Amino acid sequence: MTFEQWMRATLDHVETALEHYLPGTDIAPARMHEAMRYAVLGGGKRVRPLLVHAAGELMGASTQAVEAASCALEMIHVYSLVHDDMPAMDDDVLRRGKPTVHIQYDEATALLVGDALQSQAFIALTAEDNGLSAAQQAALVRELGVASGSVGMAGGQAIDLESVGRKLSRPELETMHRKKTGALLRASVRMGALAGTTPSEDDLAALDKYAAAVGLAFQVVDDILDVTADSATLGKTAGKDAQHDKPTYVSIIGLDASRELAAQLGRHAHAAIQNFGARGQRLAEFADLVVNRVN
Amino acid sequence: MTFEQWMRATLDHVETALEHYLPGTDIAPARMHEAMRYAVLGGGKRVRPLLVHAAGELMGASTQAVEAASCALEMIHVYSLVHDDMPAMDDDVLRRGKPTVHIQYDEATALLVGDALQSQAFIALTAEDNGLSAAQQAALVRELGVASGSVGMAGGQAIDLESVGRKLSRPELETMHRKKTGALLRASVRMGALAGTTPSEDDLAALDKYAAAVGLAFQVVDDILDVTADSATLGKTAGKDAQHDKPTYVSIIGLDASRELAAQLGRHAHAAIQNFGARGQRLAEFADLVVNRVN
Repeated sequence: MTFEQWMRATLDHVETALEHYLPGTDIAPARMHEAMRYAVLGGGKRVRPLLVHAAGELMGASTQAVEAASCALEMIHVYSLVHDDMPAMDDDVLRRGKPTVHIQYDEATALLVGDALQSQAFIALTAEDNGLSAAQQAALVRELGVASGSVGMAGGQAIDLESVGRKLSRPELETMHRKKTGALLRASVRMGALAGTTPSEDDLAALDKYAAAVGLAFQVVDDILDVTADSATLGKTAGKDAQHDKPTYVSIIGLDASRELAAQLGRHAHAAIQNFGARGQRLAEFADLVVNRVN
Repeated sequence: MTFEQWMRATLDHVETALEHYLPGTDIAPARMHEAMRYAVLGGGKRVRPLLVHAAGELMGASTQAVEAASCALEMIHVYSLVHDDMPAMDDDVLRRGKPTVHIQYDEATALLVGDALQSQAFIALTAEDNGLSAAQQAALVRELGVASGSVGMAGGQAIDLESVGRKLSRPELETMHRKKTGALLRASVRMGALAGTTPSEDDLAALDKYAAAVGLAFQVVDDILDVTADSATLGKTAGKDAQHDKPTYVSIIGLDASRELAAQLGRHAHAAIQNFGARGQRLAEFADLVVNRVN
């Protein structure tokens, strides 16, 4: 199977699994469930689910188990987007090519939809028939809680808010991104692995190195695309960072150095997983995708 | 030990445990952790932790195990208050006798603090040394996720928002409260019990009945106090429901009938747990407290 085919098949699986793990609009409150599905389904690059699948396959995780972990991570990611788009934060009207939730519905609904999506992620991880043992469920909840909470994603967003209009040093910028987006990408790789045969400490260390490189590459490329791509290609507002006077890799080290950094991080990602040999193929291909993506 | 003494000792335990399970202000991002602690510590009736402890003692749960469950429930409760107080929802400035989080800090911080408190609840439930087995951790996450998500607390808040200015029937009002506050109170009782010796189906059914009665009584008394108490006694804005034209028990069945209903629900709560005999003492005393409370 080519990477392209693998990706398409995985994305299909993920969409079906998200359908399954989201409450239906036949269940009350119907409007809220409709809004949750509006936020999650039919869009997004599904970067975190793809990482879960790639790492899960490496460790022989069952399809069912990686699907539960994938959905949990995507729901956490989407809840953070829904809240991030609200007027109190980034105040954005366009996401994944559609009006943001607080525009399509209203602010209170967006707030509650984000809250409920976070709960739903932990429901998915501990569903009775999700292919994970109780020990795996507990371990995955622990990973996801830490990665999404105050020392992870939410904490990174807080640092991001405080940094608007300030000139960050490159290490400060890296700390912010390691929390804001890196923590959840790292959790994707770890949770995929933990959903399979118990990975060794060495395996987890290699995967952490891989995830750190891919996570940072992802952010560097995001910053590059914010200045080089248009809104239609991105499916979100382009030029937003510059407009909000947010520190980015491009603003700190320039466009050419950012491109070189992204390529270098791609090589680091490959190096981290070379001991897995052919079993690491999907992870290696995924790293290339992150570095070379155009939206 | 009198109930008064038991309660004071339990509240002390809970405060210490919350201190333990909340990230310190020495950890980055410091301002966010300060705001999380501001929201959670030094206030609140701790209704949910008290219920966890009462049900946990009934089922012989360890102190450590009930503390983890108590903290998780209180963090979920507080996150919902922080978000509920925001301008997009109830727009309130006073909570537990202090300025609300978005007033004391800012809106974006309140949003993120609520988000991070939810994650922190699931971190507490799955902490490696919290006295719960992996199977108990997974079971408690499942209970808390469902109780706080779209078919529980968050869903109840959505229904509440949609009901403003509408005349609800009494069954509609009950459905809303069963989700908005009832689900988390029920989870408190169930999680306390599940933190101990595996409760039988009969035990859980009895505890569900108890929790349903106490949960509804709690809400009816809330509605009574909203019209009979002042803001200083309540530690939050009194008369808020009438002002927001929210349907309440008092507005639907009147003050006297509301008082009679609260007393009746107290009797139901006692009846539900009579088979536990003396082991159910704290739960019985707690039901009396809920019915007779003045704030």
